[in-house]
Amino acid sequence: MNVYAGLTGIPVVKSSISYIDGQKGILEYRGIPIEELVENSNFLEVSYLLVFGKLPTKKEYEKFVSDIKENLELNQGIIKFLKDIPKTTYPMKVLQGIIPILSAFDENKEVLDEKHHYSSLVNLLGKVPTIIANWKKILEGKEPINPDKTLDYAQNFLYMLTGEIPEKEISQMFDKTLILHAEHTINASTFTAIVVVSTLADFYSAVSSAVGALSGKLHGGANEKVFYMLNQIKDLNQIEEFIVNKLNRKERIMGFGHRIYKTYDPRAKIIKNFLTRLSQLKGESELYKKAIKFEETALKYLKDKKIYPNIDFFTAVFYSYLKIPPQLYTPIFAMGRIPGWLAHCKEYIKENKLFRPTQIYDGGHNIHYIPLEKRG
Amino acid sequence: MNVYAGLTGIPVVKSSISYIDGQKGILEYRGIPIEELVENSNFLEVSYLLVFGKLPTKKEYEKFVSDIKENLELNQGIIKFLKDIPKTTYPMKVLQGIIPILSAFDENKEVLDEKHHYSSLVNLLGKVPTIIANWKKILEGKEPINPDKTLDYAQNFLYMLTGEIPEKEISQMFDKTLILHAEHTINASTFTAIVVVSTLADFYSAVSSAVGALSGKLHGGANEKVFYMLNQIKDLNQIEEFIVNKLNRKERIMGFGHRIYKTYDPRAKIIKNFLTRLSQLKGESELYKKAIKFEETALKYLKDKKIYPNIDFFTAVFYSYLKIPPQLYTPIFAMGRIPGWLAHCKEYIKENKLFRPTQIYDGGHNIHYIPLEKRG
Repeated sequence: MNVYAGLTGIPVVKSSISYIDGQKGILEYRGIPIEELVENSNFLEVSYLLVFGKLPTKKEYEKFVSDIKENLELNQGIIKFLKDIPKTTYPMKVLQGIIPILSAFDENKEVLDEKHHYSSLVNLLGKVPTIIANWKKILEGKEPINPDKTLDYAQNFLYMLTGEIPEKEISQMFDKTLILHAEHTINASTFTAIVVVSTLADFYSAVSSAVGALSGKLHGGANEKVFYMLNQIKDLNQIEEFIVNKLNRKERIMGFGHRIYKTYDPRAKIIKNFLTRLSQLKGESELYKKAIKFEETALKYLKDKKIYPNIDFFTAVFYSYLKIPPQLYTPIFAMGRIPGWLAHCKEYIKENKLFRPTQIYDGGHNIHYIPLEKRG
Repeated sequence: MNVYAGLTGIPVVKSSISYIDGQKGILEYRGIPIEELVENSNFLEVSYLLVFGKLPTKKEYEKFVSDIKENLELNQGIIKFLKDIPKTTYPMKVLQGIIPILSAFDENKEVLDEKHHYSSLVNLLGKVPTIIANWKKILEGKEPINPDKTLDYAQNFLYMLTGEIPEKEISQMFDKTLILHAEHTINASTFTAIVVVSTLADFYSAVSSAVGALSGKLHGGANEKVFYMLNQIKDLNQIEEFIVNKLNRKERIMGFGHRIYKTYDPRAKIIKNFLTRLSQLKGESELYKKAIKFEETALKYLKDKKIYPNIDFFTAVFYSYLKIPPQLYTPIFAMGRIPGWLAHCKEYIKENKLFRPTQIYDGGHNIHYIPLEKRG
């Protein structure tokens, strides 16, 4: 009997949430191409679509947005805690730690009940941005900024991060980057979420665990590393040498290549367009210029191998334009992925089957205990 | 292509940590039968054995115990937080939430480095009992009791729970129940831990996520439910009727039956012996009398079906003898399982392979977005 190492290619669910065609560069949420959603919809509407399987009616949508607004504020005990813990605590640990506690503020405890699905979604969509933004302010030694219900979802988040109300066009672009992070079939974090929920643990436990998985450097975190990589390069003229050296040393180029996409990542294409627009509005930043030249140069060497920039490559540049510190890139990825995780949890428990894989034992048998005095 | 629902029977690891023979009722840790470990060892020594694959030398053991004692105390910010959050927060959520934050107090951040394995183990073995005991005191509206380093591991925990230093014989029995909870091959929580660590997230993220999985009612939590079930029965004479009714309604009898053991659970046998001794020392409690009669009666109906009491059945009675409130039974299970989870994390990342299963898509394609005004 062999071990199914990493379960590569083993189907663990039937799912109708999202679909990827990696050859053609197609990503659909509930059958709708992401390009259409980015063009016409917004992150909250897409969240509803992913979790409940249909676009909300006007009435449903208005209630959903208003319920999220009612859930933006953090309990004072949580804010005090953020002030009390060491500033060295990684933001992803802060998120993983606070999320299970948010369950205490949700009266719908029963994981099989649709009420829990709805209330955990609005509670998490409401409070996770506030946790991230408050933590940033506390790290800066400043008072956290309270959420402002009069702003829209993305505007409010950027306002809490910076203290300034962003221009509408920019906050809308940010909102659409959240759409692009919202769901991406089964990966390590989504798989973690469904393994946890298969025990009938609630959605808070599942999402917290998914955040834990996303925090690993083989999963989330690539966007942050793109930022550091581009910042290693001091001058545009050094880019080609940098890339060639990396390739010669067979090192991975951060933000390039994807397990599934063997063509241009459709999400990267969209964010690259946002960057073009942003550079028209704000001027070309140093990082933007580097990124554009980097992509052009890297593709000379990598296109034949079907290695293209992925979503993380341009996300890093986009967030840096918005002056978001790099250690928040992965938490923002997590914030965007909440609807995807919850959609899979909801779908999985409908026909729940507890995860119970097994092991192949390769140790000894009937070994005897040796008393402490007689050991080495 | 079929879905491997719940991955039942699919081997995901080669492992030398523990072995179960469910037909013969054998459980070995690193090849040593648990009966020998319970007879001769203690929980901390067994923790070392499980994680590091060998019994410690005298010097290693003394350092290990002393390092754990140095890690018993909680940061004041965490204690304040426990006082600030709603008393309705489930103890398992408290545990899942605090554990990621403990990473901030561990300077060994690199998950592939053995230093992280050691320091996360002593940090978690040190602080998790304190979290559980402090939370109990706070729920009672009392001040948390600080750990006492002059006591041994189990004594200190029971002291923090009750304010009284327990008799040595009783705290030793409690310590041995922790040995029996320490490891049990791959199940949903252990699987969660290795999925999370496979992303190279650290051991705190992995253990927190495992606690999340254990909190589900299909996994941990059976011990607590045994307590409630036995308390539903008002009189010894009602036991047979209670059982027969349950069987006729095809309801599950809590604390009976096990996925793997088709004979007497070897762990249950040991805890039953502890209970016999405890009843000699302390007198036969009502719950003890009920449990003994319940077992005898249930076995009349279930033995032919190879359904026997499992570890949870007698654990519930044992903990109730020690006046531990039932909502702490699953957290204590988690506290005992820490070494098993970490042993699997350490073993898995040695030849790490990121978990990346897949899905079978059964939704639509190329569906169009409908503007809000045109929806139902």
